[in-house]
Amino acid sequence: MKTYRKELWFDTKQRREFHNITRTVDECLRESGIQEGLLLCNAMHITASVFINDDESGLHQDFETWLERLAPEKPYSQYKHNGYEDNGDAHLKRTIMGREVVVAVTDGKLDLGTWEQIFYGEFDGKRKKRVLVKIIGE
Amino acid sequence: MKTYRKELWFDTKQRREFHNITRTVDECLRESGIQEGLLLCNAMHITASVFINDDESGLHQDFETWLERLAPEKPYSQYKHNGYEDNGDAHLKRTIMGREVVVAVTDGKLDLGTWEQIFYGEFDGKRKKRVLVKIIGE
Amino acid sequence: MKTYRKELWFDTKQRREFHNITRTVDECLRESGIQEGLLLCNAMHITASVFINDDESGLHQDFETWLERLAPEKPYSQYKHNGYEDNGDAHLKRTIMGREVVVAVTDGKLDLGTWEQIFYGEFDGKRKKRVLVKIIGE
Repeated sequence: MKTYRKELWFDTKQRREFHNITRTVDECLRESGIQEGLLLCNAMHITASVFINDDESGLHQDFETWLERLAPEKPYSQYKHNGYEDNGDAHLKRTIMGREVVVAVTDGKLDLGTWEQIFYGEFDGKRKKRVLVKIIGE
Repeated sequence: MKTYRKELWFDTKQRREFHNITRTVDECLRESGIQEGLLLCNAMHITASVFINDDESGLHQDFETWLERLAPEKPYSQYKHNGYEDNGDAHLKRTIMGREVVVAVTDGKLDLGTWEQIFYGEFDGKRKKRVLVKIIGE
Repeated sequence: MKTYRKELWFDTKQRREFHNITRTVDECLRESGIQEGLLLCNAMHITASVFINDDESGLHQDFETWLERLAPEKPYSQYKHNGYEDNGDAHLKRTIMGREVVVAVTDGKLDLGTWEQIFYGEFDGKRKKRVLVKIIGE
């Protein structure tokens, strides 16, 4: 069995941003040399997400509007978590979007559907944060 | 290490449907001959879901009502994603329900709790779509 | 390839509770002797969740308030699932929080970010329920 591990770093300019990381994750897979197995990609922070969806800017605006409706950022006082911090909403938004994805590795490639793209979802940015890529297989 | 891969195809009659795929996934596992490992089952489309819950028709109606409340299909104009398409709501509904499940394989069987059943959740149907089953182990 | 399996049992005093199970899952990993691989931890019941977030009591109160807003427990009659049962809301709450987490195993340790903690989320407690830990690797 082969295993591979890499951390990806992010430092977004805005509080909330979506970044397509499919190409970077694909480079990790090639670097690993693994042909068959499973790839785990997860946020290492609890106010960020790794998820799979469409790379379409209208949809990303819809996500922003929708998440703000389900778990609004303000007023900060609505969350008991917000004392020293102001990111209560980010914990909830990331819960909706999910922490991680598991992707099949087949013939040395990410075994994704036609429109599946892997995204980093940041909900409390403007600071350095990490994503883990772990691959096991052979 | 052994690996196994299969695509399952769906073409639902309605826009939104839930299908219990536990038996089909179980057949994949038997076909694989894998006794110990992990099984990934994921939608290959971004407006569909694979999730685990109860096979109870009342609950499935509750899911339908609840998802329509959290991310209504209409009016289509409420989503920026809806220009050429009308499935903005389906991307959001699938986000709530999740893309994938990972199930333990123990003694050649799906290691599920008593009431756990695997479902395909379609939110933008009436066309051919795929689910991936990938198993690794030995 | 090595594999490891363990069931963790819970019997909560209240209908809804969150329990930090990181230490217990870590003990499973040590017991397994696995150094590199993937760890799956999932609820075996469909009204409970395993998720990763912050061990902060204010946040946990925020989760309770937020989940009650998105999928209220009462009136019980609002859910078609509630005939013999009264736990329709618990199925929906667990859907938001997720069934499972997959965690990388690196150098014999849970490869978690600084603030990542693994929780058991109970939404229909006061009875015995199980969580599965399955680890594969070498």
